[in-house]
Amino acid sequence: MVFSSALIENAVNEFAKLPGIGKKTALRLVLHLLKQETVQVQQFGEAIARMRQQIRFCKVCHNVSDEEICGVCSSHSRQRQVVCLVESIRDVMAIENTQQFNGLYHVLGGIISPIDGVGPEQLNIQSLVERVKNEGVTEVIMALSPTIEGDTTIYYLSKKLREYPVKITTIARGIAFGGELEYADEMTLARSISNRLPLDSYVKP
Amino acid sequence: MVFSSALIENAVNEFAKLPGIGKKTALRLVLHLLKQETVQVQQFGEAIARMRQQIRFCKVCHNVSDEEICGVCSSHSRQRQVVCLVESIRDVMAIENTQQFNGLYHVLGGIISPIDGVGPEQLNIQSLVERVKNEGVTEVIMALSPTIEGDTTIYYLSKKLREYPVKITTIARGIAFGGELEYADEMTLARSISNRLPLDSYVKP
Ligand SMILES: [Zn+2]
Ligand SMILES: [Zn+2]
Repeated sequence: MVFSSALIENAVNEFAKLPGIGKKTALRLVLHLLKQETVQVQQFGEAIARMRQQIRFCKVCHNVSDEEICGVCSSHSRQRQVVCLVESIRDVMAIENTQQFNGLYHVLGGIISPIDGVGPEQLNIQSLVERVKNEGVTEVIMALSPTIEGDTTIYYLSKKLREYPVKITTIARGIAFGGELEYADEMTLARSISNRLPLDSYVKP
Repeated sequence: MVFSSALIENAVNEFAKLPGIGKKTALRLVLHLLKQETVQVQQFGEAIARMRQQIRFCKVCHNVSDEEICGVCSSHSRQRQVVCLVESIRDVMAIENTQQFNGLYHVLGGIISPIDGVGPEQLNIQSLVERVKNEGVTEVIMALSPTIEGDTTIYYLSKKLREYPVKITTIARGIAFGGELEYADEMTLARSISNRLPLDSYVKP
């Protein structure tokens, strides 16, 4: 691509580093920004840079936070004995969006995956054990991906937590609401049958 | 969407202002940047802000430029008597990419469109007339969109330039290479027939 300006070329290259954004899309975005007021574009650039620079991770749950302790962990209206273990801050957002969970979180920062070179020592496991040990946690909900790696991680953690009086649960897995049975993979289908529920626990729509 | 950080919420909102980027994509981009080094994200933000802040528009042709006069206009190897008129800087890039044109450009900054409230006075028309009048331009190639607005603009400009000894041409319009005849719109098809070429001017692949 020929650019008549190094400034534009540079901006396009920066945008094109983002996942899912090719050179053409990057150029479209840059030409759009070129039409905006200088102050607005500056605001854009600064919001991004400031976000990365000032972001903190909650000392308790490792979720992103603007303070030392995140809003969930410092809230007085949350059920502090129930901790939902998730892989990433993205999962925290997804669960918070459902407005169905009122406990606390623990962000693992990944999942055990030997293929990707991720072992237990790279994850926020020790701090989870400390929380269970010292903070009266009565239940850890393992809300990890329904994959081999997720299952490996759940198995590893359940062994680690075995010595403490804490209930370990996993999120229900099965055919997604609206999903078609025949397209579900074998493992999901098998699990959804073996984990079948009595009719009276079935949530009516 | 629930965010546990105002910094993140802010960054997501800024990304979501870009065309074609919804909230979900914006969040994906922000979470990606969160994983990058602070210095890299800062570089991203600064490249965007600097681009808008420092960009200049060529005093001669109105193309984007890092200097007062753009690289094309200040080049000694371009044919200075032939000016290609385009709607936007995007078109300059597209034509430069073909490496087939060796003249200069003139960026109109839009197209006459009463519906969108764009009249001749909002476009870089006066400076084009001055160039034709004072700079020995022998040909203006109207490389505008093949639309009603494009045709209106061409008609308006050809009247404006009538009094000067300059040849006015338009880019060839017709069925795009690889395009299927039956899917071409009527106007394109009609034009491609009335503007048919003798076989010996047919460019062999
Ligand atoms: Zn927290
Ligand atoms: Zn120029």
